[in-house]
Amino acid sequence: MNQKSYRNILKWGDPNHDEVIGHGTLDYVAKTFNLSPKDLAERYMPGDEDVKLSKKCRLAPAVLTSLKKIVGEANVSSDDFERAYHSYGKFFLDLVKLRYGMVENPPDAVVYPRDQADVAKIVKFCNDKKIAITPFGGHSSVTRGVEAPKGGVSLDLTRHMDKVVRVNVENSSVTVQPGIFGPVLEKHLNSYGTGYTCGHFPQSFEHSTVGGWAVTRGAGQASTGYGKIEDMVLSMRVVTPRGIIVTKDYPAAAIGPDIDQIIMGSEGAFGVVTEVTMKIRAWRPDNTVYASFLYKDFESAVAAMRQSMQGEFGKPHLFRISDPEETDVAFAMKGMNGSAADRVLRLLGYKPLRRCLMFVAVEGDADFAKLVAGKIKTVAKKNGALSLGAGPTKKWLEQRYSSSYLREPLMDLGLMTDTLETAVSWENLMQVWNATRAYLKARPNTVCMVHISHVYENGANLYFTFLSPIKKGKDIEDFTRYHKGLIDTIHASGGSLSHHHGVGKMMGPWMRAELGDTAHDLILAIKDFLDPRGIMNPGGTLGLKR
Amino acid sequence: MNQKSYRNILKWGDPNHDEVIGHGTLDYVAKTFNLSPKDLAERYMPGDEDVKLSKKCRLAPAVLTSLKKIVGEANVSSDDFERAYHSYGKFFLDLVKLRYGMVENPPDAVVYPRDQADVAKIVKFCNDKKIAITPFGGHSSVTRGVEAPKGGVSLDLTRHMDKVVRVNVENSSVTVQPGIFGPVLEKHLNSYGTGYTCGHFPQSFEHSTVGGWAVTRGAGQASTGYGKIEDMVLSMRVVTPRGIIVTKDYPAAAIGPDIDQIIMGSEGAFGVVTEVTMKIRAWRPDNTVYASFLYKDFESAVAAMRQSMQGEFGKPHLFRISDPEETDVAFAMKGMNGSAADRVLRLLGYKPLRRCLMFVAVEGDADFAKLVAGKIKTVAKKNGALSLGAGPTKKWLEQRYSSSYLREPLMDLGLMTDTLETAVSWENLMQVWNATRAYLKARPNTVCMVHISHVYENGANLYFTFLSPIKKGKDIEDFTRYHKGLIDTIHASGGSLSHHHGVGKMMGPWMRAELGDTAHDLILAIKDFLDPRGIMNPGGTLGLKR
Repeated sequence: MNQKSYRNILKWGDPNHDEVIGHGTLDYVAKTFNLSPKDLAERYMPGDEDVKLSKKCRLAPAVLTSLKKIVGEANVSSDDFERAYHSYGKFFLDLVKLRYGMVENPPDAVVYPRDQADVAKIVKFCNDKKIAITPFGGHSSVTRGVEAPKGGVSLDLTRHMDKVVRVNVENSSVTVQPGIFGPVLEKHLNSYGTGYTCGHFPQSFEHSTVGGWAVTRGAGQASTGYGKIEDMVLSMRVVTPRGIIVTKDYPAAAIGPDIDQIIMGSEGAFGVVTEVTMKIRAWRPDNTVYASFLYKDFESAVAAMRQSMQGEFGKPHLFRISDPEETDVAFAMKGMNGSAADRVLRLLGYKPLRRCLMFVAVEGDADFAKLVAGKIKTVAKKNGALSLGAGPTKKWLEQRYSSSYLREPLMDLGLMTDTLETAVSWENLMQVWNATRAYLKARPNTVCMVHISHVYENGANLYFTFLSPIKKGKDIEDFTRYHKGLIDTIHASGGSLSHHHGVGKMMGPWMRAELGDTAHDLILAIKDFLDPRGIMNPGGTLGLKR
Repeated sequence: MNQKSYRNILKWGDPNHDEVIGHGTLDYVAKTFNLSPKDLAERYMPGDEDVKLSKKCRLAPAVLTSLKKIVGEANVSSDDFERAYHSYGKFFLDLVKLRYGMVENPPDAVVYPRDQADVAKIVKFCNDKKIAITPFGGHSSVTRGVEAPKGGVSLDLTRHMDKVVRVNVENSSVTVQPGIFGPVLEKHLNSYGTGYTCGHFPQSFEHSTVGGWAVTRGAGQASTGYGKIEDMVLSMRVVTPRGIIVTKDYPAAAIGPDIDQIIMGSEGAFGVVTEVTMKIRAWRPDNTVYASFLYKDFESAVAAMRQSMQGEFGKPHLFRISDPEETDVAFAMKGMNGSAADRVLRLLGYKPLRRCLMFVAVEGDADFAKLVAGKIKTVAKKNGALSLGAGPTKKWLEQRYSSSYLREPLMDLGLMTDTLETAVSWENLMQVWNATRAYLKARPNTVCMVHISHVYENGANLYFTFLSPIKKGKDIEDFTRYHKGLIDTIHASGGSLSHHHGVGKMMGPWMRAELGDTAHDLILAIKDFLDPRGIMNPGGTLGLKR
């Protein structure tokens, strides 16, 4: 691939790997959206051209010189490709705009700090000069988190500040620099001493950083057992324009408001996280027990999930339900629909577009894992489920990071696809699911897949994925309108704006309605205090004014 | 007892019940502190006199009239006894001062709001008039949390705002008013439907409220399994001078800083909590498995506790170690020292002033409880422990709220006793324990008992109790000096200022050193925003300026 192309920015994963859609998926897509061989052969706006920005770097040469003095010549760039690369994450509109060659809000320069001291100097310098700073990690934001409407500096923490500082076996914790990627951390932990794991595996695991996880309140696929990142972080170090905040790694305390819980969720708008200490766990993959179930309908699957979470017999780590349509798509893509096995399932009452898949994995101590999996099986059976054994869950885990790679080839076919997630109490779950599905399905020719993942005693996360043909040439307007209605629907029906994607600049306009005036003004006041000149990730993050 | 006396304010529990020290304890105390029969017969400053305040109510009659218009005539009082009652919690110096008849910082009036609307009106009225408001719950603060150095109104939430609003079985939650006491909530839950429990049992359970638990970040004796209150609260309603904050009961979210985690820890200095929704759990006391162990030394007991918490086989609910001196006192009070059983224990290597008791209780599903207790037993044996069966833990639980009642008769004998607690990482535990014990024991004739309770994968809580003869007549100066040195020692050796007692006005002076300037200034900025005129619990709470 052209290394300096727009496509190299928009595509997920290794730039040298061009994802190809598998046969099952391609058949399904061609049939569902009635694509002709000609359609399948075309590539819609692939973005193969070289990046060329109309907006030139607006920083004075003296400013660039000063930045170079701080971090070294090689760690400041105002190259077009690098600036474009640092303008977008992986929100659907980001990708569309890149295919159009549109880069509306590039930073003026990209700076790669070498250490905490560099960060402190850059923040001080930029604060004095009132130059915007947008911290940049794994490039995976789906909320316009790293877009730089005020230009300034994109502070990329992944080039140098990507190290493990210390594994503390006694405290069961690891201290890392913010720009470390998931696989690097996990590999380090797996091979350290008797073997550890970070326990945090978001869909974006391969292309996201610990700093990004922390400031956006991310969740991994094992979060039902290990918690979200805000349950894992023990302490942090944060450079703000007001000064440096260093919290301590007490397991809990009663010394006023929880400062870590203010920084987590700040999404770069309060300061730059330069160090994170988080929990680790013993890594014993051989102990993991897998289970999979098929339910007759969504209601009984949800009931079983809720009863399991409230059963007080320990929690599974991975816990997931696919709703009827997502289950149907999974069956279709595997070529299962109409097979002999399918006919048996139908006879047993597990009917298409009603039946639901559940995936379970329990980690930790071997006896504990067996006990929890056994208890869930009992609850599943009581709710009419058919046990499918370990296979489906194991298979799902094997490909768990791969679905992100499908977005580019699907977009090449002129299909739009995006995801939205929301936290709901059990009481609101059905209502949010129904209302949101009704909204999404009101668009003709739209596939809407929902799963429940990240489960709690008191509620869960609903995750919506939709797939529909783009209105070619009017795709930005079309998507924007559809997407806005989707967020409005989730909000009105009682779901949170986000469970783990964060807010960014995309969800900003909804924040006031979500939190209420006083709570939102409180966040504005915190911003004003920590960042009085409004230089940190400005331009609407969290619905902030600056 | 004289219903209007100082003693009625200082004493713990039912005013009509005068606690008598049991034989074992009395023998131990008499011997340890060399008390003569004459000493034992005397009562040092019992505080039997009627309360009479030299500071009269300074609120203008028109102000009192306005307050009465809001809440009704019967719900405003400027009676001396009621004002004195609302001046103090249960900090040792509070009790000494009451015995002296000293009430330095009484509120000018006590107001009993009937509902959220009353609270909103009072906050607005007092904010307009710049009258201080100190929210008042269960009267159990040990940090000068409810003292009113700026006078004004003590807002007692326990008379009317003490109801269960709703039990939500589907969400596994309960919504309550802030002034509800532990036993009322627990009784309601136990008898609701199939039976539930709140899972939060602080030492002060009988005399503390949900609102107090939440704003001070309290912890109950089952916190190792159920978490601290900040892990249990799902949402809150808070009336601040700036406006009302209402959070939502999502199980988790990624919508900016966690507002609940700012209110929890605010200790009444940001506003008045008027409603709390918290988790509940199925109440199945028959499932609980109890275990008790004796270890040869503190180090091996701590190692076993840490290994259990990091074993990933599920957590016990109650998990507790008494250090050698606390274990020795327990043996002595039960008359065990020198008994036949004791001689056997010594022969087996469990020697006095080295051996340590561990208490364990696991709740929840029956099989889960058995599994966790069994795993802990295995870890205990590996660390050289002797299993003592269920008995000692059950006995400890039976009397778990009673030790607070001993303080008055001990003070009557001229003994000072107080407790301090601190959160530590595992790595720092021994260092904090050693340094703090060394400090406390440097005072002649002092018993220092330490236990570990509230345990985590990454550390624990150290709880110090000391007992020493008062310097009669100079008790305030003596205690103040000793106590200050104790906090300094904990802080310097790496423990947190508090794990679950909170900060109040007592720990305020240490907050800046604990948090660092920027983090503490951030709390000041939050205060300035939510309470711009400084009317909420003013006078140094959390080390705030106002």
